[in-house]
Amino acid sequence: MEDLHIGIIGGTGGMGRIFADLFRGEGYTVHCAGRTTGLDIPAMAKKCKVVIVSVPIGVTAEIIEEVGPFMREDALLMDLTSLKAEPVKAMLRASPAEVLGLHPLFGPGVDSVAGHTICICPARTERWLDWARDILKKHGAILMETTPERHDEMMALIQVLNHLNSITMGMIMKEWGADLAELEKFTTPIFTTKLAIIKELFTNNPRLYADIITLNPYTDKILELYEKTLSEVTGVIKQGDVGAFTTLMEGRNLWKS
Amino acid sequence: MEDLHIGIIGGTGGMGRIFADLFRGEGYTVHCAGRTTGLDIPAMAKKCKVVIVSVPIGVTAEIIEEVGPFMREDALLMDLTSLKAEPVKAMLRASPAEVLGLHPLFGPGVDSVAGHTICICPARTERWLDWARDILKKHGAILMETTPERHDEMMALIQVLNHLNSITMGMIMKEWGADLAELEKFTTPIFTTKLAIIKELFTNNPRLYADIITLNPYTDKILELYEKTLSEVTGVIKQGDVGAFTTLMEGRNLWKS
Repeated sequence: MEDLHIGIIGGTGGMGRIFADLFRGEGYTVHCAGRTTGLDIPAMAKKCKVVIVSVPIGVTAEIIEEVGPFMREDALLMDLTSLKAEPVKAMLRASPAEVLGLHPLFGPGVDSVAGHTICICPARTERWLDWARDILKKHGAILMETTPERHDEMMALIQVLNHLNSITMGMIMKEWGADLAELEKFTTPIFTTKLAIIKELFTNNPRLYADIITLNPYTDKILELYEKTLSEVTGVIKQGDVGAFTTLMEGRNLWKS
Repeated sequence: MEDLHIGIIGGTGGMGRIFADLFRGEGYTVHCAGRTTGLDIPAMAKKCKVVIVSVPIGVTAEIIEEVGPFMREDALLMDLTSLKAEPVKAMLRASPAEVLGLHPLFGPGVDSVAGHTICICPARTERWLDWARDILKKHGAILMETTPERHDEMMALIQVLNHLNSITMGMIMKEWGADLAELEKFTTPIFTTKLAIIKELFTNNPRLYADIITLNPYTDKILELYEKTLSEVTGVIKQGDVGAFTTLMEGRNLWKS
């Protein structure tokens, strides 16, 4: 494997760069292609035995369709997208190569994968699965192996509901006309923590969160439950019934079976 | 002041105990009265120059009306409630004593007030304001002086919206049938943080949060904005329009003026 060439499409972005560094550390030759590098996809696919697609969700399928057909059966095609069902299907359809879907469950702000979880969805793998597992584990990643469908279902709560919840709170504060300097004077530890999360979503990469929320197959179910729950809570609050609100919370306590 | 007797009604609860410790550390005699100590309010009011009401929001007015009339003009009546407008009005009405409203902006889990913010609302104070300020500052508290109305308005975001947002997310997860052990395997740093906050609200003292949300004078406005915002977000998501969602986020970015 000493001569292995690895291509990362989107390898100049935050997450792509973390993986580029990891593979370079293994002594492999890494070719990164981004919007600014004059991407020649057929050339990359011919040169590289392993290709990783690390582009925004909205263009992932398109890039997979471009690169997939140029790869051979003994090659490996992977993606790093926050959703797994559609990208994995697209890879299986577009390419004869082995297919492995990955989702690093952390942001591009980390130094390396060490100590962080990566979801892996083996879709069509024979030769390459152990290689991928071994390298990621060697660098300290915690691997969570699952199906693309199960992954997307878990992300309905971990990403869709979670981010939707934070984004809604941020938008309400803006509508309210909140003054950040004033809020800081009155803040509580929990509010400070929430505000830091909301800031991250609005200032880091809003498009990514819009993608994650809009394109998950379970989003409609989350939206339905959100509206139903909010209207239920609003009902008891408008009645001024603290007892009924407390009972509602006690009945919906995740930590009580 | 060496002989000062201080009465804390609710002094066996978490927050009351922190203040009891603080005043005992000053060499004062502290009398705590709770539901289990056979509370004799008139006796306490006669013995103590300073009385602090630290009971659940729902019974604060009632306790203030019980203790207030027994206190003299040269005494000090304070409360530690999470709302300030109504409790301060109740103290001014019920008692001839000096009146100072406090809201410690932290939970009862802390060891002391050191490094934490306390909101103080001087309502009718002459002799006692400097005494209270000096002791709290001496113990490392950060004092945030404001009016009861301004306090409650800030808490509409810092407590009402913030807790409502977390509680709603927790209830939706329960309705979804979320499995905590499974979620842990797939979790992200942001989700882990949010989950810890939600757990605190549901398991620590649900009644307190139900009180804080239900009884704030600005809650109706928060509920109205919450429903409006959620329905706006739901609209763009259901159209599958990632671009419109991103634009919506960019237009409601609190960190961009």
